[in-house]
Amino acid sequence: MNEPRLDELGFAVVDLDRERRQGLPEIVYGPGKTSEEIAAIVTSLLAGCEGPVLVSRVEADVAASVLGSPELVSGRDQGEYDAGARLLVWRPRPAGTVSLTVVSAGTSDGPVAREAAGVARAIGLDVTEHADLGVAGIHRILGRAEEISRADLVIVVAGMEGALASVVGGLVAVPVIAVPTSTGYGAAFEGVTALLAMLSSCAAGVTVVGIDNGLGAALAAHRLATTLDRRASR
Amino acid sequence: MNEPRLDELGFAVVDLDRERRQGLPEIVYGPGKTSEEIAAIVTSLLAGCEGPVLVSRVEADVAASVLGSPELVSGRDQGEYDAGARLLVWRPRPAGTVSLTVVSAGTSDGPVAREAAGVARAIGLDVTEHADLGVAGIHRILGRAEEISRADLVIVVAGMEGALASVVGGLVAVPVIAVPTSTGYGAAFEGVTALLAMLSSCAAGVTVVGIDNGLGAALAAHRLATTLDRRASR
Amino acid sequence: MNEPRLDELGFAVVDLDRERRQGLPEIVYGPGKTSEEIAAIVTSLLAGCEGPVLVSRVEADVAASVLGSPELVSGRDQGEYDAGARLLVWRPRPAGTVSLTVVSAGTSDGPVAREAAGVARAIGLDVTEHADLGVAGIHRILGRAEEISRADLVIVVAGMEGALASVVGGLVAVPVIAVPTSTGYGAAFEGVTALLAMLSSCAAGVTVVGIDNGLGAALAAHRLATTLDRRASR
Amino acid sequence: MNEPRLDELGFAVVDLDRERRQGLPEIVYGPGKTSEEIAAIVTSLLAGCEGPVLVSRVEADVAASVLGSPELVSGRDQGEYDAGARLLVWRPRPAGTVSLTVVSAGTSDGPVAREAAGVARAIGLDVTEHADLGVAGIHRILGRAEEISRADLVIVVAGMEGALASVVGGLVAVPVIAVPTSTGYGAAFEGVTALLAMLSSCAAGVTVVGIDNGLGAALAAHRLATTLDRRASR
Amino acid sequence: MNEPRLDELGFAVVDLDRERRQGLPEIVYGPGKTSEEIAAIVTSLLAGCEGPVLVSRVEADVAASVLGSPELVSGRDQGEYDAGARLLVWRPRPAGTVSLTVVSAGTSDGPVAREAAGVARAIGLDVTEHADLGVAGIHRILGRAEEISRADLVIVVAGMEGALASVVGGLVAVPVIAVPTSTGYGAAFEGVTALLAMLSSCAAGVTVVGIDNGLGAALAAHRLATTLDRRASR
Amino acid sequence: MNEPRLDELGFAVVDLDRERRQGLPEIVYGPGKTSEEIAAIVTSLLAGCEGPVLVSRVEADVAASVLGSPELVSGRDQGEYDAGARLLVWRPRPAGTVSLTVVSAGTSDGPVAREAAGVARAIGLDVTEHADLGVAGIHRILGRAEEISRADLVIVVAGMEGALASVVGGLVAVPVIAVPTSTGYGAAFEGVTALLAMLSSCAAGVTVVGIDNGLGAALAAHRLATTLDRRASR
Amino acid sequence: MNEPRLDELGFAVVDLDRERRQGLPEIVYGPGKTSEEIAAIVTSLLAGCEGPVLVSRVEADVAASVLGSPELVSGRDQGEYDAGARLLVWRPRPAGTVSLTVVSAGTSDGPVAREAAGVARAIGLDVTEHADLGVAGIHRILGRAEEISRADLVIVVAGMEGALASVVGGLVAVPVIAVPTSTGYGAAFEGVTALLAMLSSCAAGVTVVGIDNGLGAALAAHRLATTLDRRASR
Amino acid sequence: MNEPRLDELGFAVVDLDRERRQGLPEIVYGPGKTSEEIAAIVTSLLAGCEGPVLVSRVEADVAASVLGSPELVSGRDQGEYDAGARLLVWRPRPAGTVSLTVVSAGTSDGPVAREAAGVARAIGLDVTEHADLGVAGIHRILGRAEEISRADLVIVVAGMEGALASVVGGLVAVPVIAVPTSTGYGAAFEGVTALLAMLSSCAAGVTVVGIDNGLGAALAAHRLATTLDRRASR
Repeated sequence: MNEPRLDELGFAVVDLDRERRQGLPEIVYGPGKTSEEIAAIVTSLLAGCEGPVLVSRVEADVAASVLGSPELVSGRDQGEYDAGARLLVWRPRPAGTVSLTVVSAGTSDGPVAREAAGVARAIGLDVTEHADLGVAGIHRILGRAEEISRADLVIVVAGMEGALASVVGGLVAVPVIAVPTSTGYGAAFEGVTALLAMLSSCAAGVTVVGIDNGLGAALAAHRLATTLDRRASR
Repeated sequence: MNEPRLDELGFAVVDLDRERRQGLPEIVYGPGKTSEEIAAIVTSLLAGCEGPVLVSRVEADVAASVLGSPELVSGRDQGEYDAGARLLVWRPRPAGTVSLTVVSAGTSDGPVAREAAGVARAIGLDVTEHADLGVAGIHRILGRAEEISRADLVIVVAGMEGALASVVGGLVAVPVIAVPTSTGYGAAFEGVTALLAMLSSCAAGVTVVGIDNGLGAALAAHRLATTLDRRASR
Repeated sequence: MNEPRLDELGFAVVDLDRERRQGLPEIVYGPGKTSEEIAAIVTSLLAGCEGPVLVSRVEADVAASVLGSPELVSGRDQGEYDAGARLLVWRPRPAGTVSLTVVSAGTSDGPVAREAAGVARAIGLDVTEHADLGVAGIHRILGRAEEISRADLVIVVAGMEGALASVVGGLVAVPVIAVPTSTGYGAAFEGVTALLAMLSSCAAGVTVVGIDNGLGAALAAHRLATTLDRRASR
Repeated sequence: MNEPRLDELGFAVVDLDRERRQGLPEIVYGPGKTSEEIAAIVTSLLAGCEGPVLVSRVEADVAASVLGSPELVSGRDQGEYDAGARLLVWRPRPAGTVSLTVVSAGTSDGPVAREAAGVARAIGLDVTEHADLGVAGIHRILGRAEEISRADLVIVVAGMEGALASVVGGLVAVPVIAVPTSTGYGAAFEGVTALLAMLSSCAAGVTVVGIDNGLGAALAAHRLATTLDRRASR
Repeated sequence: MNEPRLDELGFAVVDLDRERRQGLPEIVYGPGKTSEEIAAIVTSLLAGCEGPVLVSRVEADVAASVLGSPELVSGRDQGEYDAGARLLVWRPRPAGTVSLTVVSAGTSDGPVAREAAGVARAIGLDVTEHADLGVAGIHRILGRAEEISRADLVIVVAGMEGALASVVGGLVAVPVIAVPTSTGYGAAFEGVTALLAMLSSCAAGVTVVGIDNGLGAALAAHRLATTLDRRASR
Repeated sequence: MNEPRLDELGFAVVDLDRERRQGLPEIVYGPGKTSEEIAAIVTSLLAGCEGPVLVSRVEADVAASVLGSPELVSGRDQGEYDAGARLLVWRPRPAGTVSLTVVSAGTSDGPVAREAAGVARAIGLDVTEHADLGVAGIHRILGRAEEISRADLVIVVAGMEGALASVVGGLVAVPVIAVPTSTGYGAAFEGVTALLAMLSSCAAGVTVVGIDNGLGAALAAHRLATTLDRRASR
Repeated sequence: MNEPRLDELGFAVVDLDRERRQGLPEIVYGPGKTSEEIAAIVTSLLAGCEGPVLVSRVEADVAASVLGSPELVSGRDQGEYDAGARLLVWRPRPAGTVSLTVVSAGTSDGPVAREAAGVARAIGLDVTEHADLGVAGIHRILGRAEEISRADLVIVVAGMEGALASVVGGLVAVPVIAVPTSTGYGAAFEGVTALLAMLSSCAAGVTVVGIDNGLGAALAAHRLATTLDRRASR
Repeated sequence: MNEPRLDELGFAVVDLDRERRQGLPEIVYGPGKTSEEIAAIVTSLLAGCEGPVLVSRVEADVAASVLGSPELVSGRDQGEYDAGARLLVWRPRPAGTVSLTVVSAGTSDGPVAREAAGVARAIGLDVTEHADLGVAGIHRILGRAEEISRADLVIVVAGMEGALASVVGGLVAVPVIAVPTSTGYGAAFEGVTALLAMLSSCAAGVTVVGIDNGLGAALAAHRLATTLDRRASR
């Protein structure tokens, strides 16, 4: 067991070894951190790692403040803000050979779907998006079934009753990662209904991440890409 | 307000006025009653009402014992036991003009679907059944969509994630009554997942009854038939 | 299966086929959309459909902004805002022959009851409203029982313990659609208590929609009217 | 503070002071105790207290075994078993001047109602019972409203949606103690729905005890009788 | 059954018969009503009833606005605002002979305890208050046990684990009404923990009202006073 | 859209097209089916499909009865029963090139882990198992970390607090599918605690299936193998 | 990091290093294991460790079978069965200097209290037990307060509303470990109410273990004894 | 039983005896109290007790206002504000001989960890802190295992899935007190997931306090120190 490489910043300990272990630097979770703290962690990751550096769930004003901080303005790598995905990205990877389709059910599932797509794109997946494919209009899904099933894997983002995961899971043979969203009102219970429905899907082999966790779905896709790449390189 | 007509049996008070108010005699809920008690209530209803008399959730041995009880054996109306629906029926109504389709998702939803269909048939609806139409095989549903949409109303019976209600609700324009079942395991939570999913359906205007409540769905269908008949007779 | 008619607006995909399938254009859910987005979707629906166009859950300022948007101001059909129902309506249908009674339990159930009534009226039902009929004053309900039971169907809106659904369900023979509201405090648990109580109603054949879902109840009423109209036109 | 009078039996400590503090000897909860243990506790209470001695939730075979145990057979006070209430009673009090009405909603609420009534009767209340008064048949309740409202207090026993507590609470001015029962299926959730509904009752001033807790309701009635008697004796 | 006396105000239906049925005019629940609406209802109640008129859960600014409204300023009966109880009162009853003790566990239970005490006082009970008697300092409770047990009934107000209800219930023989509060954090779950604990109290015969429902507890006390007064007047 | 190939058996509709769509015949869920029904479905699948035929959750006596049924005894393909995995298998696939490691936390997680491993093996994955690696003895896991991380994907099976998913997820870069089990007592709440913990894992990109759903995890692995095989064959 | 000492038995991996790390051999959890499996694990632990060997939650017949198994009958250390604690023990430690008091609320909390006391005694704590100290009879607790507060730590075992933990926590200054039990019915919800109440205790510094987890409380006591012993030996 | 020494301030009753009973003056819970009320209680405690006086959960502006209040500015003991722990402290104890390690999982667990550490330090424990030791980077924990295990006891603070408690509990032999935090989103459910996971920990003998209850963990540590000190002084 090697001594882990850590950067102790006082308010946080940055794990510089994550990249070696998992093929990707630690992704910074934005909420609850000041823009100074975010800038310091990003600086540490840019210096200590080689891959893409991402900060998730960043509002526009915080993003501007981070991008304008002295240590980052003067750095070699310039960051970009993806407002739809609420994501800050430095050193994005070019699209590789692994293809991902992100399918979402309604307009209000958009932010979560865009987070999943934005992160996946930044870390090198070849991403296609299909929005607004609710199961109440089943023909819309069927019209795109063939196109969807050509991807290496599919992320399904849905709130309310989350039925889209079951329908897509029944249509395609590749891995389906379901993301329940907190969309809906009343008996949707902040995403719990969609979460339970996806876990109980009658389409076998669908797996699930936490509510609104677009980032987690993208990282699950990254794990899959790791295996695909590893086998391709043998 | 008229004085209500009641038959006080000691262990129960039979509401003989229900038929006048609701167009159907009270339906007897079997569990927790002895076969003697059931026979006494049925005898009271046969004497005090004119319409069909039903006992729900009756196991085969209890049914045999009720049917063989002296007061019923010698009665004018002979009862029959519908094992699939776990239902005892006296004086069933002939099929009227109101058509109902009962759609169910998997083989284990069968008992609840058969209860809904059995009760509906006994009280005079014209019932068609479609079983085993899970959304994981969406083409099976689509192949029957047109046939389903010809009914006056549709009952959808599903457990697990209950997505069938949303898909059918999106395909037909007529009333859809969803019945969640306690089918499934793990995160299906004894029907709670299907119940919540159906209440959160993205197919607007779907209504829901309690878990495993096939009887309730059939009686909701009866209410609709009441309105149809009333309008027809104007 | 025909190719579905869709209008892709970038931020949303408008399903122009819904009207053909379900007899009513898609209803726009207001929250989470900008007034520009709402105006664009409404414009698309007015152009691509023939029936009434509705936007639900719209606050007064957003409504004013939508109504004042250039593409709608200059349009052929002028919209109106129903503040009590928080509803924007273009091309309302005249009242048809199907009668609906909306009964609510307390003053705080008002907004949900008005949404149900407002939507139902806009899509052509003949609506009567009875407010403030809590079961703690049971004589108020009984005094109107006969009037209520004359409708083709009844929507019951209640929070707290939701008992009104059981009482009305026992008094009338026609379809009863129950809407639990998030009214109440403490053990009312944001409508969950009323929801569970309505699902467990001892008045058989009552069906339920999600918490605060007045819109859903109105659309369930529309489904019923569809069947009634279809039979009337045979 | 006096030294408490306790009888230590090894497997249990009998609190002989309860009678002085609360006007009634400790009531023995039957389940989980052997008939030998019950007999020993009863013997201790008969010797150390003066009032009625009760054992609740006793099945018939255990009751027979307790009544036949040597120390009790030879005792001065002979016990009786009330099968309906599943109650063993020694030294019941004669009916006093405090009147209690126990109202229940359906036949399956019977056992809990009978426990409440049986305990109340044994400890000296003047008890009247009204069974099978479900709110779906509201006229049955109204027909007895005047009679019910003459009691000093009312216990309402109901499962399913528990609406009877609200209706009775609105009809009478005296104390109403509501007992939810685990009756019902599906969304009744073993009495939780009735419990929540009763706690959220729109009839003000209704109080609630735990699910199926007929004994607790009877003891709440005893507390009230204590106050009434204390004031009468001033 | 007499025709009920109702005052239809458009936005609300005032039940003027409540006083005859329950011995107290309807109590107005403040939240969600404008000060104009409150003033109109109060005016209606002052005109149509004889007893005390109360409005609960009123913040100071709304109270001032209601008290200053033209129809009330010029009225015969002048209202008063009890800030601690957040209560508006017209025509309070003088203290009668029925004594009530309100016991609360911690300083943050104060508002609920004061609501219970304020309402009870306004409707004619003779109220004593004991605050800050948490069970972690059990000697504080014991030091006042005798005084508490002299009341005709006791209201116990407690949040967190709600243990005070069990301790007081074990010390006194008179009725104990427990009010769980939403005090506490973490596993107190907004009062659910205290509610469940009070319903499961090992002190038999304790009854419970909803979370934070001080008003409900006071009205339960009023029901008891009704019985006491009725018996006294025989 | 092709016409789906279905085999209607009366009590069930067998979807013979599943194999074409998903690369694997439908897997039969044993519970709730008689051995005659299982035998009929298996016979239909053996005739209509080419791949492996599996029945899950079969107890030993049912398995023997199915294997001994006339139509199967005389068939070309002979079935085998895997008692540890409670699985019946006909025509298992030989191990392919995709490697899977199944890691489980405690001895009581065994049955679920064996179901996952058994199904995966039968459908052609190259499976390795590591049992009894609870996180309370973290060194056991670390000692095998390198071996585990060599697989193409990892299934983690754990009950109680489900922490093993987070630890393994942090150690390996490949896909991790977590299966919560209903192991544990008290606050483990039949697997809910492990389920929630796995969904909240701090190890990013872990995905989850339903409680005790070893079969689902194996089928998720099959989806991954489908992508791997498809890419290999390009 | 040393190589961990493990004994791989096929169906289980015995962690022989636990004793070095935690001062106590692994404790075997009985349920779900055959008596042969238990005997094999015990044999392994007796051979590979030096301290006491315990098996928890063993019913009498399994215990007899384990004790009579060939490898254990002929062993050097003879086991004993403690029926009250459902515990098998080999090589118990003599009582050390650390004193523990186990306090329980009612007779039905006995089995959990006896498990806590039995395990604690077997691993060398000096244990005193106080049973049947429910808070409804608060004087019983106060009479023993001084004796209880003399212990080095206290375990409080209670079901129903779990108030005993708060009362004892307020009386003593030493560590209090609370064990909720699944005692009670209705709103006790299988121990959840007691669990939540103990976590919300107003007596600061009380810590909690899982429902019915007497074993866990005893091992928490062992951790404290470890610190005490370590300090004593410095 | 001595008469308890209480200071009645009108809005609160200060328990001056707590120090004698529990070795520490009552700790003031800040939220919901005005700075005047806090100042009055602190003044009472400084006068009536001898030990440290603490106010928890105080925001910076309230703290400044309390510290600047006339009665405290002129007092003998000057208070200090610990912003990280949101704690006001007067008369802190010097570090004694009992050592405590506070371990936390992520940066967002910081505030709770700092409250635990701040309170513990103020009441005389010798505190070390280790932050940001999430289990997804298990090597970080292992690298500090030896140092952590040297403490007399350990507090583990973690949100999300709370797995850190199990890992640390398996590494050290001394008491481990786990504090779940409301960190995390989606299925973390405001700390409930971490709470349940810690209560179900596979590392035996871990005890738990309420969600975010850093103060409670510090006071549990104080209880342990009381026992250690008491034994040392014998």
